Amino acid sequence: MRLAAFRRPTDEPDARFVGLVLGQGEHLRVHPFDAGADLVELLGESAEWRESRADVAAAADGLTLDEVVLLPPVYPVAMRDFLTFEAHVDGMERGHGNPGPPAEWYESPVFLFMAPHAVTGPYDDVAMPPDTERLDFELEIAAIVVRDVRNGSVEDARAAIGGYCVMNDWSARDVQGREMRLKLGPSKGKDFATTIGPWVVTADELDPYRDEDGFLDLAMSVSVNGRTVGEDRSGHMGWSFEQLVSHASRASWVKAGEVLASGTCASGALAEAWGRNGALVPPPLQVGDVVEMTIEAIGTITNRVVEREVVAAPVPPARRRTRVEA
Amino acid sequence: MRLAAFRRPTDEPDARFVGLVLGQGEHLRVHPFDAGADLVELLGESAEWRESRADVAAAADGLTLDEVVLLPPVYPVAMRDFLTFEAHVDGMERGHGNPGPPAEWYESPVFLFMAPHAVTGPYDDVAMPPDTERLDFELEIAAIVVRDVRNGSVEDARAAIGGYCVMNDWSARDVQGREMRLKLGPSKGKDFATTIGPWVVTADELDPYRDEDGFLDLAMSVSVNGRTVGEDRSGHMGWSFEQLVSHASRASWVKAGEVLASGTCASGALAEAWGRNGALVPPPLQVGDVVEMTIEAIGTITNRVVEREVVAAPVPPARRRTRVEA
Repeated sequence: MRLAAFRRPTDEPDARFVGLVLGQGEHLRVHPFDAGADLVELLGESAEWRESRADVAAAADGLTLDEVVLLPPVYPVAMRDFLTFEAHVDGMERGHGNPGPPAEWYESPVFLFMAPHAVTGPYDDVAMPPDTERLDFELEIAAIVVRDVRNGSVEDARAAIGGYCVMNDWSARDVQGREMRLKLGPSKGKDFATTIGPWVVTADELDPYRDEDGFLDLAMSVSVNGRTVGEDRSGHMGWSFEQLVSHASRASWVKAGEVLASGTCASGALAEAWGRNGALVPPPLQVGDVVEMTIEAIGTITNRVVEREVVAAPVPPARRRTRVEA
Repeated sequence: MRLAAFRRPTDEPDARFVGLVLGQGEHLRVHPFDAGADLVELLGESAEWRESRADVAAAADGLTLDEVVLLPPVYPVAMRDFLTFEAHVDGMERGHGNPGPPAEWYESPVFLFMAPHAVTGPYDDVAMPPDTERLDFELEIAAIVVRDVRNGSVEDARAAIGGYCVMNDWSARDVQGREMRLKLGPSKGKDFATTIGPWVVTADELDPYRDEDGFLDLAMSVSVNGRTVGEDRSGHMGWSFEQLVSHASRASWVKAGEVLASGTCASGALAEAWGRNGALVPPPLQVGDVVEMTIEAIGTITNRVVEREVVAAPVPPARRRTRVEA
């Protein structure tokens, strides 16, 4: 089952409805659930109950994609981004002159918390962020958690994952590079936009795509202005999403409404090519560029880079400390 | 004005009330606001309106600290932790064999997003996290954002900050050290507990403590088992909280209910002493240790380290990639 969040162009800007997505291409229709339906709640209920509500939605008329604005399927209560694709880590490390992933990468998965309020809809324009000449994308697959988990086994984690979507973790590489000198990871380099969508495909629907270890194995690709620039498979992740949720939940809450992302797949970011090529080839994204990401059995997100917004003035450099003893 | 979140020990575990804190020491009382009062909303309203509601609360009987369980004053909708104390960065860098803060530290403030669901109450026990032999604390001051800001000036930011509290960003240094080899910052090393409290002191109440540049200048100290191990002043931050909020809001949302923290002050973490001393002196925290943090004009948080909880089994090492071409 595919579930989308949407509003009609004539609705209030903060209106939000959930729809059942049926059909493909020009036959695709979004069939609204009852007003008040919540996407995370629908995913957290039993399949039987969800199906019965979906039957009601399907019986009524659907809307074409021209008749709706698709919204981020979830406004996350927290968002973790992992680093699970060995070949991506290998490419980035070689770009820094290292021989490959450090031993620590293999031991257990790492993640960072992301800007939860930066999520944007699957077809939304993305404004060029300030202070960057190196705008990049990151092709990822993301899981939507629909039940609270703490110290959950892999089996608990499986029951807590409601579905999956495509994610573009937009990144300002030059800003991020300066910030990461402080060892805490990126700050403003990644807090301006994260595209998720186009909808959530329920976990049960993707079971046929699991490999012998239970890893989802879906083809992933990204194009810029219609030209494919990256391709990989989600089966190349070092850990399954169930393992990632279990790991995140060790002595910590993973709550309903959280999003956990795979990290960038191999060739899923321009920066990986820049490291490999020793030059900005392909070039950083420019205003007007269209980035399109597709994951097999999930769907496609498409976003145009548009002009910078008017931003706040930068803050001054640090005030040097004056050593007045406490 | 001091505002605390609390429940009575006999209330449901998820009960949550807001109280006006009056008096000091044994005369301290928590005067409940009407049921349904929300701490972030109270802080977001005008001072006149807040005072009028506080007058009603103050007229009724108050509860002693023995009669309440103080809760985290806010369950953050997102949480940023900055790195604003030059002397702390200097100490940590020297511990890594570097000559001092990199030039990038001075240019603009960096931050990471924290685990928002890890916040715990001001007097709560903290369970020893798994996989660590190097539990540490971090003494910080935190601001509570009570109005949404995007591209806000320093003046906008000032209107958006409702108040301040003490924060202990508990850290498992060995876990964090392994994770930070991957350059994304800490993951499991910092997602298990963040103590905030004991209450929020409204921003207006701290105005007398602003220095000539408008920076809050409050004495900060931390003790372990009654012995002072760290002291600094918030006036040693490289940027004011208003500058931090403005910076965070550039091309990004900072929303009501967010918490922004200063980062560790100088001598506000054992790890800084470990770097300076070249040895684990003072020793890492052990079960039974009591960590107490005080910030002038705000208050004190006190937490005991207790036994580990039963955690989920660790996940296996990464599955090595099998190069099936996409």
